[in-house]
Amino acid sequence: MKTEIVSPIRFENNQLFILDQTLLPGEEKYIEIKTKEDLRDAIYRLKVRGAPAIGVAAALGIYTVTKELEAEDYADFFRQFHQIKEYLAAARPTAVNLSWALDRMERKLKAMEDGLCFAPAWSSELEAIKEDLLAEAEDIRREDEAACLAMGKHGLSLLKPEMGILTHCNAGSLATAKYGTCLAPIYLGQEQGYNFHVFADETRPLLQGARLTAWELCRAGVDVTLICDNMAATVMKQGKIDAVVVGCDRMAANGDGANKIGTAGVAVLAKEFGIPFYMFVPTSTIDMESASGEDMVIEERDGREIREMWYEKPMAPEGVKTFNPAFDVTEHRYITAVVTEKGIIYPPYSENLKKLFRQPD
Amino acid sequence: MKTEIVSPIRFENNQLFILDQTLLPGEEKYIEIKTKEDLRDAIYRLKVRGAPAIGVAAALGIYTVTKELEAEDYADFFRQFHQIKEYLAAARPTAVNLSWALDRMERKLKAMEDGLCFAPAWSSELEAIKEDLLAEAEDIRREDEAACLAMGKHGLSLLKPEMGILTHCNAGSLATAKYGTCLAPIYLGQEQGYNFHVFADETRPLLQGARLTAWELCRAGVDVTLICDNMAATVMKQGKIDAVVVGCDRMAANGDGANKIGTAGVAVLAKEFGIPFYMFVPTSTIDMESASGEDMVIEERDGREIREMWYEKPMAPEGVKTFNPAFDVTEHRYITAVVTEKGIIYPPYSENLKKLFRQPD
Repeated sequence: MKTEIVSPIRFENNQLFILDQTLLPGEEKYIEIKTKEDLRDAIYRLKVRGAPAIGVAAALGIYTVTKELEAEDYADFFRQFHQIKEYLAAARPTAVNLSWALDRMERKLKAMEDGLCFAPAWSSELEAIKEDLLAEAEDIRREDEAACLAMGKHGLSLLKPEMGILTHCNAGSLATAKYGTCLAPIYLGQEQGYNFHVFADETRPLLQGARLTAWELCRAGVDVTLICDNMAATVMKQGKIDAVVVGCDRMAANGDGANKIGTAGVAVLAKEFGIPFYMFVPTSTIDMESASGEDMVIEERDGREIREMWYEKPMAPEGVKTFNPAFDVTEHRYITAVVTEKGIIYPPYSENLKKLFRQPD
Repeated sequence: MKTEIVSPIRFENNQLFILDQTLLPGEEKYIEIKTKEDLRDAIYRLKVRGAPAIGVAAALGIYTVTKELEAEDYADFFRQFHQIKEYLAAARPTAVNLSWALDRMERKLKAMEDGLCFAPAWSSELEAIKEDLLAEAEDIRREDEAACLAMGKHGLSLLKPEMGILTHCNAGSLATAKYGTCLAPIYLGQEQGYNFHVFADETRPLLQGARLTAWELCRAGVDVTLICDNMAATVMKQGKIDAVVVGCDRMAANGDGANKIGTAGVAVLAKEFGIPFYMFVPTSTIDMESASGEDMVIEERDGREIREMWYEKPMAPEGVKTFNPAFDVTEHRYITAVVTEKGIIYPPYSENLKKLFRQPD
């Protein structure tokens, strides 16, 4: 069976297209990004979401927008580039990968200043600058794809054909350049005929599991079954689950991992039913300055996400109190192994994560 | 603070009114039941739901409908009554309490035959028959309310003021004549100023926790916070929960209890976090013929409940496989105590449930 792994960002013939994820699962539509307004809107309105995917979209996007710029000289180009960068970075100020990717593009541009010989060769030099910016953006994209592929290979070594695999939220291809983090081994396995049986938690309140994970796995021909979050214990007890794979938003030095709300509960159930629980964590997500998960501040979101479906129809009494944490912290003792692009880390995490950061790249 | 506990069934001035629960939480509207069609429709369309509430509605309902009947003699009245009974019972053939209540009403009618002296006193005898039927229906209602109150008193002895209490689905006043099963101690505590802090799981896919439990507790002035099912682990870990109270659809002789999907997962979490887990089980729900929960067949429902919100808006890719079990079985080892109307049962359940059924009423 052909495995068609969706990529949320397409760059073809020097044109940038972004899959509008707000239309999923109903419609698969790529929108072209031509202007800085297009790009900011796509990021702000979550048409592109998932930390790595936002970074890749921002890098290819700022290239796409600034390649159209005319400029008198380097300083003029830099000034315009910087303005656009600031404009884009404000789309989601808390999205670390957004500012990270834009900063990296600007650093590249800065580094090019020394090599310039200025006019009369400026117009061809501007072309060279733009080509270098494209190369940098392509690097960001390639590096992310390579990291996902590496996590996929390491992760696949933990799995066997025909396994039942439970996942929560969406740490999939849609959230990255391609392949995803915790879904990467599922795609690689699919290509190799592993015939996994994936169970996707719908992931209330925003239903990323139903809308995104189920969609991208269906599209790639993976056998996926959608369940409500509260059915995880049942599928585990029925022997349908051999492994749990989840992503991670931030991991502390002791291996405690913050991820989408509900992850910690799944980890407790996995332990109870003797099922291995694997967290997929790009090393950029590991914060060695953070001693443990207890230090992590958990964002609380608007209760309307719980009270009203899509802000349309009330599902609960008006004005009822809600508690709507966006993330929870899975304590390291529930995590069987941490899968990074550099390899698999086992407990004791305090020790072995340190070693990971000491090893040469 | 005044505790106004909603009752889903009102019988006033010989008129029957049923709270239309399909309009909750948006609208609180009682509809009058005058004809057999009204009653069948209310039961079929889940305007009244919850096993005990259906029984009470059916008993008061068949009285309300048959009190309007003219009849030539007892045989004629019985024939008409029986026809209406069969018509009503077909509204939800699997609802045990529906046929149980209707059968009990018919048995009462049958028992009255011997005491009759027939015409010319028939018309006054018909009135007496109808009065006896009303008395029987009122008994059914009173018995259910008394059982709920008794469970409430026993349950309250397990709780302390200011406790945080998690509940799942709706085993509340709306599902019974009044008070509910597992919510009964919360109402009694509320009347006594216990100031409980209740957390209600929304209970996907049908959201009984959001639509019904949060609504009836809000209405009674109870401090209630609505959460998504996957947030239970977080509130437990944060120390917000001192006890879990849930209802039960069917309990086996060894104490395994089937209840709304998600209950078993909550029980595992409660055990992990050292929180007592109390199941509220009317003795009529205990099936001593059933050795364990393994024998119980779990109903699987239409996947559209998961894929589409209210069958309106798709939330998942079209045609994605789903698994939608309506119930799960909580193994007895996760249940700290079983609260019945006759008292609190502790492990070992195999032994102590037997004793319960041996004791005189």
